[in-house]
Amino acid sequence: MAEVLVKDLFSDQHFAEDEEIVLHGWVKTVRGSKRVGFIELSDGSSMKHAQIVMRSDLENYAEMTKLPLSSTIKVVGTVVYTPDAKQPLEVHASKIVLEGASDNDYPLQKKKHTYEYLRTMAHLRPRTDTFYAVFRIRSLAAFAIHQYLQEHGFTYVNTPIITSSDSEGAGEMFRVTTLDMNNLPKTEDGKVDDSKDFFKAETNLTVSGQLQVEAFALSLRDVYTFGPTFRAEDSHTARHASEFWMIEPEMAFADLHDSMKVSEELLKSVVSYLLKHAKDELQFLNDNVDDDLLDRLHQTISEKFAEITYTQAIEELEKAPVKFDVPVKWGIDLQSEHERYLCEQVYGRPTFLTDYPRDIKAFYMRDNDDGKTVAAADMLVPRIGELVGGSQREERVAQLEQKIKDFNLPPKEYEWYSELRKYGETPHSGFGIGFERLLMYVTGMENIRDVIPYPRTPGNAEF
Amino acid sequence: MAEVLVKDLFSDQHFAEDEEIVLHGWVKTVRGSKRVGFIELSDGSSMKHAQIVMRSDLENYAEMTKLPLSSTIKVVGTVVYTPDAKQPLEVHASKIVLEGASDNDYPLQKKKHTYEYLRTMAHLRPRTDTFYAVFRIRSLAAFAIHQYLQEHGFTYVNTPIITSSDSEGAGEMFRVTTLDMNNLPKTEDGKVDDSKDFFKAETNLTVSGQLQVEAFALSLRDVYTFGPTFRAEDSHTARHASEFWMIEPEMAFADLHDSMKVSEELLKSVVSYLLKHAKDELQFLNDNVDDDLLDRLHQTISEKFAEITYTQAIEELEKAPVKFDVPVKWGIDLQSEHERYLCEQVYGRPTFLTDYPRDIKAFYMRDNDDGKTVAAADMLVPRIGELVGGSQREERVAQLEQKIKDFNLPPKEYEWYSELRKYGETPHSGFGIGFERLLMYVTGMENIRDVIPYPRTPGNAEF
Repeated sequence: MAEVLVKDLFSDQHFAEDEEIVLHGWVKTVRGSKRVGFIELSDGSSMKHAQIVMRSDLENYAEMTKLPLSSTIKVVGTVVYTPDAKQPLEVHASKIVLEGASDNDYPLQKKKHTYEYLRTMAHLRPRTDTFYAVFRIRSLAAFAIHQYLQEHGFTYVNTPIITSSDSEGAGEMFRVTTLDMNNLPKTEDGKVDDSKDFFKAETNLTVSGQLQVEAFALSLRDVYTFGPTFRAEDSHTARHASEFWMIEPEMAFADLHDSMKVSEELLKSVVSYLLKHAKDELQFLNDNVDDDLLDRLHQTISEKFAEITYTQAIEELEKAPVKFDVPVKWGIDLQSEHERYLCEQVYGRPTFLTDYPRDIKAFYMRDNDDGKTVAAADMLVPRIGELVGGSQREERVAQLEQKIKDFNLPPKEYEWYSELRKYGETPHSGFGIGFERLLMYVTGMENIRDVIPYPRTPGNAEF
Repeated sequence: MAEVLVKDLFSDQHFAEDEEIVLHGWVKTVRGSKRVGFIELSDGSSMKHAQIVMRSDLENYAEMTKLPLSSTIKVVGTVVYTPDAKQPLEVHASKIVLEGASDNDYPLQKKKHTYEYLRTMAHLRPRTDTFYAVFRIRSLAAFAIHQYLQEHGFTYVNTPIITSSDSEGAGEMFRVTTLDMNNLPKTEDGKVDDSKDFFKAETNLTVSGQLQVEAFALSLRDVYTFGPTFRAEDSHTARHASEFWMIEPEMAFADLHDSMKVSEELLKSVVSYLLKHAKDELQFLNDNVDDDLLDRLHQTISEKFAEITYTQAIEELEKAPVKFDVPVKWGIDLQSEHERYLCEQVYGRPTFLTDYPRDIKAFYMRDNDDGKTVAAADMLVPRIGELVGGSQREERVAQLEQKIKDFNLPPKEYEWYSELRKYGETPHSGFGIGFERLLMYVTGMENIRDVIPYPRTPGNAEF
């Protein structure tokens, strides 16, 4: 008797009529009449469920047709192919063993639940088909990213999570401490004595690994981080979480267009990987969550992305027959409404915006010769807005140090960052992708909380 | 003129005598006489350096032979194969352009530096050959882990970093907060009012994703986490860091031996991957850091690991002709000295110890029928001691709830964890690998600080 997985049943493997197989799994649905009963069985190996057919002469037939959902069972049976039926095959059970009975109050009964309700049970929602599909895609997308980058010679670098520096010179951060909050050590002037803290200094959770990964690009050439980042912003939107993952590739001897090219290829390769390896999951989400999903993904890989400058974008937006909540003029930080208008209405596909105003972008971006703009490029995508933010980095040490001053950053803290240039200036560029935004794009889910296993948002760090 | 990488020069690709190529890279060494000069050039694409030959008729010959180390240059030249020389090829330069001059005070001059000194410049040490090798291996090992698990049907799950639960019921944790430490909100009884904190509760950095990933195993069957974990212990050893990465696979419908089998196969597959894809790096480390490295790695993949019970191990240790610092008796938590004695002296290879005393292991491990031990298995490896810790999880809800009481844990906090059983008990097992310990094993580095890009230890969170 061979132990098999549900995915084996739906693979090329053929099972003979008299070949006894064993399956273990969870009961997804169950129904039975006097003479015959059916269990849909999931064992986690596939989006598909196995249809188990029980005849009333099964030893424990009555009990099995009344199983609470989510009970675990062992099924012994044979495969019967049914090419003319909705299901291509059934498993005719000769024996079913109840391994773990679920309680009758199992909260995920057959009826549809709202995503809000399911968020209150992050430990159980992976048992639903929708979240099964989303979290399989999350895993496959992460691997596709690693695979693309590794195959292209990139080195994966784990930049630190706890940090004493603030890489953006902005962004609200979470403090990390082991001080006893009920008995804080104080300095003479009555302030908290950070020198008594675990790291003998104030430390925070990282908002980006970019500055730290640049140091590795300036030795290993093409590198990337892929890890969690944090923002302590009191945002309650569907697009913001307090904890999220970022992919940050960084390339030495590369200019802005090299970086844009890699980001476009990377996105296309992830989408292609999913279209190949997550067929069932994407089809399910297309049928049940976002009926535009498959079209959008196929279009993403088939067309060259558009490219315009920020200045051209402002001109497009100024002549748009649309009233935006935030009025458009040169110098504004574009909002999601503007970004989506451009890539959805004007260009109808992912669109790069380049050469943003110097004053609205980070200090490390390379100044263009016009004195007004920087060599930055964001990739905007339909439904999401900004998916990728990238730039060429300021490699000229004099300009960098001036900019650190202009942005009122403490030069002492950025000394090591300047030294990366002092010891061999190298043109280099990179970009950051918000992993969860990418997942919203490739799953059709509309709330970032629904693509994160255990989402963290203001007021919520349960589990 | 083709832009090429140093790795291309050492690949199967052949370059014709008159084919002009362009290289960009960093000057690793430079020397010159009146008539001829040499630059060793690294461009980050390979452990190998390209030997650049300059003749004195080169336009800027004098300047180029005096370049400060770590300057970046562009070289135009042709490839000359030298099969009889130490270097299989040279690049004869027709033109060299200085792109970024390094300062003369570049701290990594040719002489050997101690690892301690290099740790003070985590941003520059990747420019040394040793750390280049270590961090390339770190990246390749991470990918090998993902690849093995994905190919075996495992789903990658990003468990939360910020958490309100303490998965081990032990371990010192870092607090995460946005409260103003100089102006803390207080409750009526004078304590810090955690309900005013960002997440409206006390939150900490995770010590393990295991409990959270179990929820996913009970739907997706075979899953894993691979992310940063944290311990706020005041340890100053060469084996402990405050921030480190863990791989935690978890499998449903799997017992302890299934889990041990996967951990052995996973380790062997990582080592095989490195022997294939990090040849130059491993050879360099074998020649310069640990001359036993390659032998150890080849042995790791060639033999079945040993397996004994904890009780047998205690008997071995009791009859050992060695005086241990911590005396041996049944019930002790084994120390590194004991672990290394067993796998180095007694078995001479990686060794599983199984069935540890219940009282020294975590609450979630499955009780054996003897009432004294649990279904746990640690993998001990030479030079390191414990590399993997695994167990079958207690899936029986009554036993689990009793154990939560026995271990004095707050039942309310573990309600969701019990519910994973209540809604369909499923035998399941898993293990955790400390990624940095694995890296010490496969690089020969002896201090955990030297396998982490930016190590965090008590008193140190620089960069």
